[in-house]
Amino acid sequence: MTKTKLATLGWTGLAAAVLFAEPGLAQEAAETAEAAADAAGGAPSPQVQYIFNTLLFLMGGFLVMWMAAGFAMLEAGLVRSKNVSMQSLKNISLYSIAGLMYWVVGYNLMYTGVDGGYIGSFGTYSFDPVGGDALDTGYSTASDWFFQMVFVATAASIVSGTVAERVKLWPFLIFVVLLTGFIYPIAGSWQWGGGWLAEMGFSDFAGSTLVHSVGGWAALAGAIVIGARSGKFPSEGGVSPLPGSSIPLATLGTFILWLGWFGFNGASQLAMGTIGDVTDVSRIFANTNLAAAAGVVTTLVLLQLLYKKVDTTIVLNGALAGLVSITAEPLAPAVWQAILIGGVGGAIVVFTVPMLDRLKIDDVVGAIPVHLFAGIWGTLIVPFSNADASYGVQLVGIVAYGVFTLVASFVIWFVLKATLGVRASEEDEMNGLDMSETGVEGYPEFTRA
Amino acid sequence: MTKTKLATLGWTGLAAAVLFAEPGLAQEAAETAEAAADAAGGAPSPQVQYIFNTLLFLMGGFLVMWMAAGFAMLEAGLVRSKNVSMQSLKNISLYSIAGLMYWVVGYNLMYTGVDGGYIGSFGTYSFDPVGGDALDTGYSTASDWFFQMVFVATAASIVSGTVAERVKLWPFLIFVVLLTGFIYPIAGSWQWGGGWLAEMGFSDFAGSTLVHSVGGWAALAGAIVIGARSGKFPSEGGVSPLPGSSIPLATLGTFILWLGWFGFNGASQLAMGTIGDVTDVSRIFANTNLAAAAGVVTTLVLLQLLYKKVDTTIVLNGALAGLVSITAEPLAPAVWQAILIGGVGGAIVVFTVPMLDRLKIDDVVGAIPVHLFAGIWGTLIVPFSNADASYGVQLVGIVAYGVFTLVASFVIWFVLKATLGVRASEEDEMNGLDMSETGVEGYPEFTRA
Amino acid sequence: MTKTKLATLGWTGLAAAVLFAEPGLAQEAAETAEAAADAAGGAPSPQVQYIFNTLLFLMGGFLVMWMAAGFAMLEAGLVRSKNVSMQSLKNISLYSIAGLMYWVVGYNLMYTGVDGGYIGSFGTYSFDPVGGDALDTGYSTASDWFFQMVFVATAASIVSGTVAERVKLWPFLIFVVLLTGFIYPIAGSWQWGGGWLAEMGFSDFAGSTLVHSVGGWAALAGAIVIGARSGKFPSEGGVSPLPGSSIPLATLGTFILWLGWFGFNGASQLAMGTIGDVTDVSRIFANTNLAAAAGVVTTLVLLQLLYKKVDTTIVLNGALAGLVSITAEPLAPAVWQAILIGGVGGAIVVFTVPMLDRLKIDDVVGAIPVHLFAGIWGTLIVPFSNADASYGVQLVGIVAYGVFTLVASFVIWFVLKATLGVRASEEDEMNGLDMSETGVEGYPEFTRA
Repeated sequence: MTKTKLATLGWTGLAAAVLFAEPGLAQEAAETAEAAADAAGGAPSPQVQYIFNTLLFLMGGFLVMWMAAGFAMLEAGLVRSKNVSMQSLKNISLYSIAGLMYWVVGYNLMYTGVDGGYIGSFGTYSFDPVGGDALDTGYSTASDWFFQMVFVATAASIVSGTVAERVKLWPFLIFVVLLTGFIYPIAGSWQWGGGWLAEMGFSDFAGSTLVHSVGGWAALAGAIVIGARSGKFPSEGGVSPLPGSSIPLATLGTFILWLGWFGFNGASQLAMGTIGDVTDVSRIFANTNLAAAAGVVTTLVLLQLLYKKVDTTIVLNGALAGLVSITAEPLAPAVWQAILIGGVGGAIVVFTVPMLDRLKIDDVVGAIPVHLFAGIWGTLIVPFSNADASYGVQLVGIVAYGVFTLVASFVIWFVLKATLGVRASEEDEMNGLDMSETGVEGYPEFTRA
Repeated sequence: MTKTKLATLGWTGLAAAVLFAEPGLAQEAAETAEAAADAAGGAPSPQVQYIFNTLLFLMGGFLVMWMAAGFAMLEAGLVRSKNVSMQSLKNISLYSIAGLMYWVVGYNLMYTGVDGGYIGSFGTYSFDPVGGDALDTGYSTASDWFFQMVFVATAASIVSGTVAERVKLWPFLIFVVLLTGFIYPIAGSWQWGGGWLAEMGFSDFAGSTLVHSVGGWAALAGAIVIGARSGKFPSEGGVSPLPGSSIPLATLGTFILWLGWFGFNGASQLAMGTIGDVTDVSRIFANTNLAAAAGVVTTLVLLQLLYKKVDTTIVLNGALAGLVSITAEPLAPAVWQAILIGGVGGAIVVFTVPMLDRLKIDDVVGAIPVHLFAGIWGTLIVPFSNADASYGVQLVGIVAYGVFTLVASFVIWFVLKATLGVRASEEDEMNGLDMSETGVEGYPEFTRA
Repeated sequence: MTKTKLATLGWTGLAAAVLFAEPGLAQEAAETAEAAADAAGGAPSPQVQYIFNTLLFLMGGFLVMWMAAGFAMLEAGLVRSKNVSMQSLKNISLYSIAGLMYWVVGYNLMYTGVDGGYIGSFGTYSFDPVGGDALDTGYSTASDWFFQMVFVATAASIVSGTVAERVKLWPFLIFVVLLTGFIYPIAGSWQWGGGWLAEMGFSDFAGSTLVHSVGGWAALAGAIVIGARSGKFPSEGGVSPLPGSSIPLATLGTFILWLGWFGFNGASQLAMGTIGDVTDVSRIFANTNLAAAAGVVTTLVLLQLLYKKVDTTIVLNGALAGLVSITAEPLAPAVWQAILIGGVGGAIVVFTVPMLDRLKIDDVVGAIPVHLFAGIWGTLIVPFSNADASYGVQLVGIVAYGVFTLVASFVIWFVLKATLGVRASEEDEMNGLDMSETGVEGYPEFTRA
């Protein structure tokens, strides 16, 4: 009889043996007692595990919620001052819409009744009742909803950065409604909801593809449909940098995102009620941090070698690319692997930012290299450290998410363009969206160079 | 014999039955053993609960402490650049004073020996000794002090925003000393200290009234006594907007406050050592988030309908009003109720900001609509979702807090006005309080439009 | 037989007594049963403790990681706008380098095989395997690495602030490589690694000396070797203030650091798996907060008395000095002692900032008064509240860290000066390091006064 089984049998067995003294049970009871003494070592009870697991979701959730502020600061810092108020408004609005839509329809579309398929169920989501004490799920359902909800907002934030400085407020918000209520949850159901990709063996621990690439594809579609900012690609050729208004705010945003990523990846372990789980969460924290650090150092070195100067904004994006890269598999890699994965992520930023410029795709904050390209890299490289994944299936997943998100996004952006129009007038763009869309300037007192 | 009682009886009963074999006890012991096996499921021990509860206070505490930074950024962003350094100074000073006063006198005034009355005891507060292991309270007293202390600071921050750009430093700080050491704790003792309102059945889960309205009433008194900023209400009529210097900082401040609110409301559950408690904390997180989101979306839509433009600062205040509204009862509401409560909070901001202007009350950051008006709304509406509350008693509480705080604050502001003077000279106000009060400009290099 | 021993004996004893009924054991078994019932009170099992301890490291770790953003904002706010982008770049780079170096060599140098000596072992650090379940350490090794790693970054951040606005990027980063990979870990091994100072009885709970003074000494060496900024000490005498570009960002940075310090000091308890430990963490939170508050109020009052104006930046540094002062012993002090210790820290800033100016040592952000001088004060005063410490040994430790760090830092800075050069050209300094080192301006649109 194994120790595990003895522990499960537990004290009832002992009591039975003692009280009714069946001959065969005496020896068993003695063993049971010993196992119980061992267990007094002692594994957390299901209730204690429930509390730890729920706590992980709540902590992870508030850290990822904080990433909404990170995106807001990153983007406010990287747009010109005449669009800062608009960018702030978009970010707090998209976070709010994401939460509402994910309750109204998104969570169930993603998680209820997917069963190997392509989509879940329609309908609002219900939390545990007050004082709820059902142990079966192993965590509070509201905590899980909260944690999953903040991920949706992240995907929407990615779009916000790319299409900044020329998209109109309401068409953008309508896109967010559809992205967070339908595109993201349906796509998510394929893997995290237990859909067809999960059954095929696709692997994406915390969302290099499900969150970052999905956001990135949607952003790419938007950038193409909306077109570049006036003056970004002058008719006489070349690229105009249109530098961001506040590097310290962009830096703050990056640090916020880095901090939030400990919740993003760490709490994607989904449990910390056993020592094995909390040890894994710890590995994830360390790997996540070092992948980001490698992204930074790689961009530092490459920029110095290539350009003799170190562009601060590229380094910030190098940190983010390192983070996105490790997100598909932050647990399995040995440290040197995590560093390698993150470092390549940083390199991707250095080499693909100019590529987008050559393609005349105007991505204001560099979100496509960071979230889409590094997200693809991170997803592809999972089998390098995780033997359960296969390169073929990873590729299938990447392509599937790309095709679906791109097609759905193009359709929505085109419909918006044909109806409401998605782009501010040339005059409004020139004067800044702060005035035309919000009526409030970001920095009303500071004169511009 | 109920399961609960058996579990309490526990193993001693079993041992007794086994060893001394009283006839009647054999069956009972068997039942005891079964209950114990069930319990191995198993409820966290008092010590484990103590750790979880204390951890909740510490986490909630650091999140709410972080709100001090949120208020600082919100206010620094919403004042003109010539007063930014002063506003920063006021915020870090008031947080510090609040902590010291709450240790010197506030905590005991609020929590010790109130017994259905109107005030607690005078004297400093004592923490558990090093390595303290008294289980009776169920949490560390220092953690509770820390958590309660950061709430006091919140009340003081509210005042800071309203009276900005014309109040002098030292009179303001003296007001903070009295607010955080006496007004807030005495008022708080009536409810959270187990005073007369608690006995009457008043309900205010996390402080829509006890924290936000108290701060709001004190701010209102200050705004009236100190008067409006020069130029806010020109003699030729109308209102001059005097726009804030940095919308991204105000946005950052709002996000910080939103994040901190998970601690504010979530940790006001006061326990997470059982699955029922941690499930409730999760509900609170979700409801709090969705109420804020509803505040945002409501202001977005209303502003578009009413003004054809979406004023970013009003939307930020919409988020905060949603948060204040749900604070009186973040646990009981179903999600749709939380959304409704928060949405109305947002609407309150849209409609009452112009109202204050008509009354020529100059509230620089909109703290009165957000914290006072939405706080009243949130408190009044508690019985909508919580059957234990009554509209009548809620009204009694709201009026009692209003009368007490308003009278006490008026007295203090008037005495300060009559002695030190509360208002900067017209010249100092014109040049900015940064120069007159701190000698350090907020943005010394940026020229002003 | 004591209760403790009975609890250890546990259920095996009971079972044995029951089943085999040795005469002498019957009474003992009854006692065992009672003890077990008591214990059901009940101490967390080693596994539950492991989870709590690891969680403390993870939470403390992410809070201290967040301090990297705090230093970035503090420093970005206190340098002139022409150096803001460079300062941002330095801060994200140093945090990244610190993490990588601490994995490559630092952690083992500090913690492995020190055994009363002066240095640990060379080599990379290994984490627990995936799903690791070794209970012997009482926490996950990766979580410990993460927590210790963020402390190294803090030491490097201190240097960054002092030498701002004239140091070149790459020499600075090389200094960071050596500081975080070698100087800090070797110095740290003497005490936290169980080296000679630990054996002598030196006491530094969370690093007033090991982190803050080490950073401060390294900064002092840098300031001396690199020299003052052009124009700081004009040839005609006197001191030019060269005011920082954004007081609100400096304020934000200070609040971030204050928040992070709850992790810095609180998680330095290194355990929260028992009620004694979590109670101590709570005491530390309260004492840490009140010491900072006292630093603020002391500077407020002193500045008003001495200068009739309250310099915001000095008050911010007063908060930080209060925090540094209490860091050597945040647990033992009674509240009034914590307030006294922090208050003196604030006073130190007021009096030593002008002293450095007189010595023509140019410390851009005031890091030397805050981290070095207040760090010495905090370390020296430990025996005031902790009877296990002695003033003599504290002095030995302070001197040892000073001599080692200063000598090592001087050697490195001199070698860097003689080879790469450490200082930007006069022209680059005049135009700002943003242009010469990063090619990206911090605030490209705001014209300068």
